[in-house]
Amino acid sequence: MSWFTATYEIAAPPDQIEARAQALALEQSVECPLEAIGSQFVLDEIVARVEAIAPLATNRYRVDIALSVATTGGEPAQFMNMIFGNASIWNDVRLTGLDLPQEITSHFPGPQHGIDGVRALLGATERGLTSTALKPQGLSVPELAKLCSTLALGGVDIIKDDHGIANQAYSPFAERLHACQRAVHEATQTTGRPSFYAPNLSGTPSVLRQRAQLARDAGVRVVLVAPMLVGIPTFVELVRDFPEFIYLAHPSAAGGGIDPGVMFGQLFRLFGADVIIFTNYGGRFAYAPETCTALASAARRPWDLLRPALPVPAGGMRLERVDEMLDFYGKDTMLLIGGDLLVARDALLERTRAYVAKVAEYGSAGIGVHA
Amino acid sequence: MSWFTATYEIAAPPDQIEARAQALALEQSVECPLEAIGSQFVLDEIVARVEAIAPLATNRYRVDIALSVATTGGEPAQFMNMIFGNASIWNDVRLTGLDLPQEITSHFPGPQHGIDGVRALLGATERGLTSTALKPQGLSVPELAKLCSTLALGGVDIIKDDHGIANQAYSPFAERLHACQRAVHEATQTTGRPSFYAPNLSGTPSVLRQRAQLARDAGVRVVLVAPMLVGIPTFVELVRDFPEFIYLAHPSAAGGGIDPGVMFGQLFRLFGADVIIFTNYGGRFAYAPETCTALASAARRPWDLLRPALPVPAGGMRLERVDEMLDFYGKDTMLLIGGDLLVARDALLERTRAYVAKVAEYGSAGIGVHA
Repeated sequence: MSWFTATYEIAAPPDQIEARAQALALEQSVECPLEAIGSQFVLDEIVARVEAIAPLATNRYRVDIALSVATTGGEPAQFMNMIFGNASIWNDVRLTGLDLPQEITSHFPGPQHGIDGVRALLGATERGLTSTALKPQGLSVPELAKLCSTLALGGVDIIKDDHGIANQAYSPFAERLHACQRAVHEATQTTGRPSFYAPNLSGTPSVLRQRAQLARDAGVRVVLVAPMLVGIPTFVELVRDFPEFIYLAHPSAAGGGIDPGVMFGQLFRLFGADVIIFTNYGGRFAYAPETCTALASAARRPWDLLRPALPVPAGGMRLERVDEMLDFYGKDTMLLIGGDLLVARDALLERTRAYVAKVAEYGSAGIGVHA
Repeated sequence: MSWFTATYEIAAPPDQIEARAQALALEQSVECPLEAIGSQFVLDEIVARVEAIAPLATNRYRVDIALSVATTGGEPAQFMNMIFGNASIWNDVRLTGLDLPQEITSHFPGPQHGIDGVRALLGATERGLTSTALKPQGLSVPELAKLCSTLALGGVDIIKDDHGIANQAYSPFAERLHACQRAVHEATQTTGRPSFYAPNLSGTPSVLRQRAQLARDAGVRVVLVAPMLVGIPTFVELVRDFPEFIYLAHPSAAGGGIDPGVMFGQLFRLFGADVIIFTNYGGRFAYAPETCTALASAARRPWDLLRPALPVPAGGMRLERVDEMLDFYGKDTMLLIGGDLLVARDALLERTRAYVAKVAEYGSAGIGVHA
């Protein structure tokens, strides 16, 4: 039988860490005392094993646990349960690493398009990529469509719904979908450059599927989904059933005890995100720069047969940080600037053009447009 | 327009709490600076409002935020997003309370059977209720069916799959379902008292639905689901589409920044759990007794049109704690003892009978059976 390794950080004093590590191994596999187990097969092949314990700081340890591949059953819900099910209830435990054999990664869809697919769709082979968000929720469909038009005239690659825009009375999904898709399409006739509207797909599984079908019928190529809001198994099924979409994954509700590098860089990619939105350092959220580096690196690194995914540092990003972000992340990155364009109000088109130009001209020494 | 209140705990120094509370209100509603908002409707009716800030301890505050009912769109994914979406990524914020108008609660299924329905099915009008778990995962179908038989002969009300038993090669769902259901049914012919097998329903939405149909066709009346593993919108849709099942909700993957009283006592109930499993104080997990009291009380209290749900304190419970738990929670409680029965090995039947007798005779002074 095969095994894979999940790595945890456990807060415990030195005289308790071994017992805590053993308890974690039991909790994440058999959930009962060893003396309750009569089956030699279970003892040999199912009970998780503590492989290593290493100190990280005072009363903080890194613990590697070997989990049986067979226990995951090749299904996303049970896989998540094995790596961080009951352990999520323990406040002193975090999941900080995963080393998965191809026997596991091959059970999940991974990005259907990846960085190359996104670049091909956008006709942008080398430059940094741009995105923005329709916000705030509460705007009417005509107001959102007007924003779409201006942002696409400004040349942004992907114009996504804010993830809080679902199917509220003030901007119902189907009406918004068609109006925004049309507005972006018409603007591209003027600009001659591709821009794509990415509607937020949300709802219970059957509703989500209906919305995905509507979007596909409307010619949508890129969609936004928050995997932790719709549920990871639902996201995986959506990716399998609608592989033609490029998926932008939103981090809403993805906080908690799973390290961001694992959650976004590994798991979201494994489950099918082509483009991974996460909260950048120095914005409205508090990730450390090294967390962001690890996340972006996990999203893009060679990994079995899984295509690389595009990282999107976001959460209160501003125009004056474009160069800094591209310096930090490199050009295989999509920037996401929303509110900082909208503050321009009547000058939204000009500010959007400045954003797009700044990203396009990044690295072309001497001709950068610095807003 | 209507509003509802979500209450958060924020860790912040006194000179920053007001700014943090305002930032939270923006993050959980419009996700952009106020100066980016041109619509008076959005400013008046959509932007969340800080209603109150009260100190709880040094650098810790309780913050009440009014959220617009309209923003939830009546859908579970978006409702979760509004109460704890992006905020989940902030480590200094926890969701600790919810005060929902009937305008919101009426959009969700709530328990379809509730405590009265569970008692009616089990033919137990007053006594405490019993459950146990088939474990560990890794056992074969014949081994699980044999356990079912013994546990049902011992008289346990509900015999549930361990939540880690999904569709693994060693105990595939359909085969297990039929063998366990048959074993329990045959045992009840001997005992003359009702016992029910509750299979764990897991998988992506379409797989989950197939398994639910198989279970219904096999005569199953009670099922186990981990809402945070399958996804809350998926759970809600399952409850709506299969209202005949009594739903046991498992807490796997439900840790993180939502207070257990809110997550299990309120949200799981709202979304349709009849029976709510949570980790009891004094077991393998670290909830404080007052957390458990608040949770059980939220599950059972009168709440709009929602039926009361049955709390199940679990996680390493032992036979000698039966009286203590029934003293603490009262008889409208289902006990869940798994590993502590299985440690009896060849004496499993006798130990199960002792468990059932202890619960049945609790409160009948002088005739208690104390194992």
